[in-house]
Amino acid sequence: MTNHKEALTKQVFTFVSHLYAYGVREVVISPGSRSTPLAIAIEAHPNLKSWIHPDERSAAFFALGLMKGNERPVAILCTSGTAAANYTPAIAESQLSHLPLVVLTSDRPHELRGIGAPQAINQNQMYANFVQYQFDFPIVDTDENNNHMVNTIDFQMQKASQFLTGPHRGPIHFNLPFREPLTPDTEKVEWLTSDEIKLPHYQKMTNIDDIASIIQQQKGLIIVGDMQHQDVDQILTFSTVHDIPVLADPLSQLRQASHPNVITTYDLLFRAGMEVELDYVIRVGKPVISKKVNQWLKVTPAYQILVQNTDLPDAFPIAPHRSFEMSANDFFRQATEVQPAERTQWLKKWQSLEHHAKLEIQEYVKYATDESAYVRALLEKLSDTDTLFVSNSMPIRDVDNLLIDCQAKVYANRGANGIDGVTSTALGMAVHKPTTLLIGDLAFYHDMNGLLMSKLHDIQLNIVLLNNDGGGIFSYLPQKQEAESYFERLFGTPIGLNFEHTALLYGFTFERFESISAFQQTQLSSFGAHIYEVVTSREENHAQHQKLYKKLSDIINVTL
Amino acid sequence: MTNHKEALTKQVFTFVSHLYAYGVREVVISPGSRSTPLAIAIEAHPNLKSWIHPDERSAAFFALGLMKGNERPVAILCTSGTAAANYTPAIAESQLSHLPLVVLTSDRPHELRGIGAPQAINQNQMYANFVQYQFDFPIVDTDENNNHMVNTIDFQMQKASQFLTGPHRGPIHFNLPFREPLTPDTEKVEWLTSDEIKLPHYQKMTNIDDIASIIQQQKGLIIVGDMQHQDVDQILTFSTVHDIPVLADPLSQLRQASHPNVITTYDLLFRAGMEVELDYVIRVGKPVISKKVNQWLKVTPAYQILVQNTDLPDAFPIAPHRSFEMSANDFFRQATEVQPAERTQWLKKWQSLEHHAKLEIQEYVKYATDESAYVRALLEKLSDTDTLFVSNSMPIRDVDNLLIDCQAKVYANRGANGIDGVTSTALGMAVHKPTTLLIGDLAFYHDMNGLLMSKLHDIQLNIVLLNNDGGGIFSYLPQKQEAESYFERLFGTPIGLNFEHTALLYGFTFERFESISAFQQTQLSSFGAHIYEVVTSREENHAQHQKLYKKLSDIINVTL
Repeated sequence: MTNHKEALTKQVFTFVSHLYAYGVREVVISPGSRSTPLAIAIEAHPNLKSWIHPDERSAAFFALGLMKGNERPVAILCTSGTAAANYTPAIAESQLSHLPLVVLTSDRPHELRGIGAPQAINQNQMYANFVQYQFDFPIVDTDENNNHMVNTIDFQMQKASQFLTGPHRGPIHFNLPFREPLTPDTEKVEWLTSDEIKLPHYQKMTNIDDIASIIQQQKGLIIVGDMQHQDVDQILTFSTVHDIPVLADPLSQLRQASHPNVITTYDLLFRAGMEVELDYVIRVGKPVISKKVNQWLKVTPAYQILVQNTDLPDAFPIAPHRSFEMSANDFFRQATEVQPAERTQWLKKWQSLEHHAKLEIQEYVKYATDESAYVRALLEKLSDTDTLFVSNSMPIRDVDNLLIDCQAKVYANRGANGIDGVTSTALGMAVHKPTTLLIGDLAFYHDMNGLLMSKLHDIQLNIVLLNNDGGGIFSYLPQKQEAESYFERLFGTPIGLNFEHTALLYGFTFERFESISAFQQTQLSSFGAHIYEVVTSREENHAQHQKLYKKLSDIINVTL
Repeated sequence: MTNHKEALTKQVFTFVSHLYAYGVREVVISPGSRSTPLAIAIEAHPNLKSWIHPDERSAAFFALGLMKGNERPVAILCTSGTAAANYTPAIAESQLSHLPLVVLTSDRPHELRGIGAPQAINQNQMYANFVQYQFDFPIVDTDENNNHMVNTIDFQMQKASQFLTGPHRGPIHFNLPFREPLTPDTEKVEWLTSDEIKLPHYQKMTNIDDIASIIQQQKGLIIVGDMQHQDVDQILTFSTVHDIPVLADPLSQLRQASHPNVITTYDLLFRAGMEVELDYVIRVGKPVISKKVNQWLKVTPAYQILVQNTDLPDAFPIAPHRSFEMSANDFFRQATEVQPAERTQWLKKWQSLEHHAKLEIQEYVKYATDESAYVRALLEKLSDTDTLFVSNSMPIRDVDNLLIDCQAKVYANRGANGIDGVTSTALGMAVHKPTTLLIGDLAFYHDMNGLLMSKLHDIQLNIVLLNNDGGGIFSYLPQKQEAESYFERLFGTPIGLNFEHTALLYGFTFERFESISAFQQTQLSSFGAHIYEVVTSREENHAQHQKLYKKLSDIINVTL
């Protein structure tokens, strides 16, 4: 028999060495007692960086941002009890966003489960609906003649690692019970290693020969959604060789390429009544933000091809005729080899629509004074070294419509499209890349606790806060007219907060803009933590957006 | 075939009428689009009160407070996606606290599940680990020849209602998918009813004759934990007739009775080294807060009897020899009939210890300047019309030690003992009873979003905020000494927030106290929303607590 402290130390030092081996470099720890063994092991490891965050909900979203920023798995660690339940929203998001979040919950030992012990909830498989893999570890074994614990860590980590990269990528959950005393022996540094295990590169080649005849048809179109860090250069090569227009979502990172075949204004063109008849469409990556495009995909008789490198394709809004589980580059490298059809006119038509739509949008925003004018002014301030993190709800829709010539990279939490945890994710991102956050007042309220990380760790972030005092997006829904008497209470939900106090609490500077010209003239700071609040009106936003849609309907009639 | 709107209206109007029938009077709604049908039905119902809360995490904890305040089931409603995941912490707490939370999550229809549609996470059984009952409703049926939906609502509500009262009480989850269009027909008011269904009163009588000989033994003791709204008068009757001391947890609501047999200082006496030998102990209700009592229960050879009116007894810290699943009043009514033993000396010994310990505590707090002095000063300000809501971690332990002659009722979230959602629960409670919240700075930070409800609905609340800038409780753990180099970063976690900004953000007044005398002289307001921040030092708190434990060890030696 070895003693408890030694066995515990062996367990947690082996465990964190495995975290390192499988690519983890950062761990977000929320303070607690039961998690002590792992927390200290992480601190003691020479090559793991830890972040301390007292709110588990924000902490988990912060980890998502770290992953979006550095493209590596990130672990989160908390104590037992409801602390762990606070992780649930970010885990659900990470699964749908295919982010390899390693969730570590510490637990009471088995003799304290289900008998009313403090801070003991049923943690076994508690995230079952939202994780790719889960394992409930045993209590550490003090019989030195066997090596159960180390073997179990070896085996479980190896098994779980298939979900850290490749098509099945997503969150994994390890629940680890610890019995008191909880302090490991930090002298045993030789048990902390920094060896790496090379994860297998996922390669599932598929032959696309059987659709060669389809992509030779004349009227083809590529629609690219969020590519989640995948390479996209072969899409543009194919588009160039084959003269095929590319409808590029802001999260595809293709708009920034300024490629003449990239179409950015399609959502507005569809809204304005554009009708498209074509032979086939190749959908790449996640579904696009544009509701209009998704509605159109549901009804078009065109042949639909889906290319996604995930195990279960996100076929929204409608199942395609043919689905390829492979990387976009592998697909389009093969597709480029197919003999191109003659489709100069087809491409030119799209380029002309794009050209005119851009002119109309530029003309419109010259005189607009609503939220879209502020979004446009922000986009004009950003360069190709900037990263823009965009909240769900209205901001991402405005960016979809107005990102027509901006070089910044654009990110969002588009797995489940929640308005929770947005600020924390942006802050995690900001650790690795200079970031500007565009967010509305309700989403900002939801995750104010997330701002603490900026204060504690001097994380620099510019926040452009669109404050229309309530849920702006609901004004665009039929509920607005059909349930008018309930509208303001149930959907408008003005919260009337003066966010200057929030800025003061967390050490952000605060500037409020009530006119678009003042905001246009302001330069965003390239250093420090700042909130730029722009005050708009939900009614005006709605009215001016309608005007833009109307205006674009004219060019549809003219050009087609 | 009836039309969609009519079928939808019939569904949701029937559903909310059933909520009313089974005792729900309040619903906490978090804004969203998918939940529109139910939200409007709730608004349209003449006898359901709704609360709108934009943060689902706080909203669910607010509902727990409403239940603690009005002792009725309360429903919560949110939109689809990660919004629902934010409910998880409060659901876990409500299960362990046996609170009948009715969780209503709206969902995308089945054709939009699992294909990458926006705001669609796997909501089916998503709280499986934490609810007593769950049901995933079908999409509404437009075939008017059958009545599937109404029958399903009837049946499911009836089935679930067994968990709204009685020994199996706890949270239930209904997931309800809705297809667009989402607006019901608010003209159909005749489908909204306010009929009540009488829930069966739970009566499982158990005969206690077989332990009559045990409770006739001389040295008996009663230990009462959180009684969760159960009547307790028969405990005192039994204690009076049989001369048996009652160790009463603050949450038992027995300390307020000022009964001569009620012992309040037991935690400190055990800490000071008191040794107790006895024949039997009757444990009633939830496990007590006192860690020392629970440690002692694990080692005492005394015969242990457990009385709880829940289905699965919370046997922490150790399984009793005999367990009775019945109400405390039923048990003690029978027990009182047993021929009492002669145990005057036994009782007097306890009363004398209690008397001397109280004197020592009163003497100690005269000169103390640490957190405990502020807690004591607060308790002295409260009367029998007040409700004190106490945060977990250090505040509940201080109240356990210092609530020796205060008439206020005391509540806490002692299901899972989390520091999350405390403020929201106190605010829900404050809707029904004049409430003072005692909370530390980390728990306060965790749920600052909860304060919004006070601002939006003028909910009055006094908050006494113990600010020692970090995790004070960790100073009492062995980790403090054993892992000193990691301590401040991993456990101390100072966040350095000036909460005056928080007060300004949410319309609370703010007063900061740096001396105990100033706090003693202050009268708590009986109107409005106020934060009284007292600034203390973690080191000093720890040192002075140790002194009190030391002092009491003297009276142990003297009295026994």
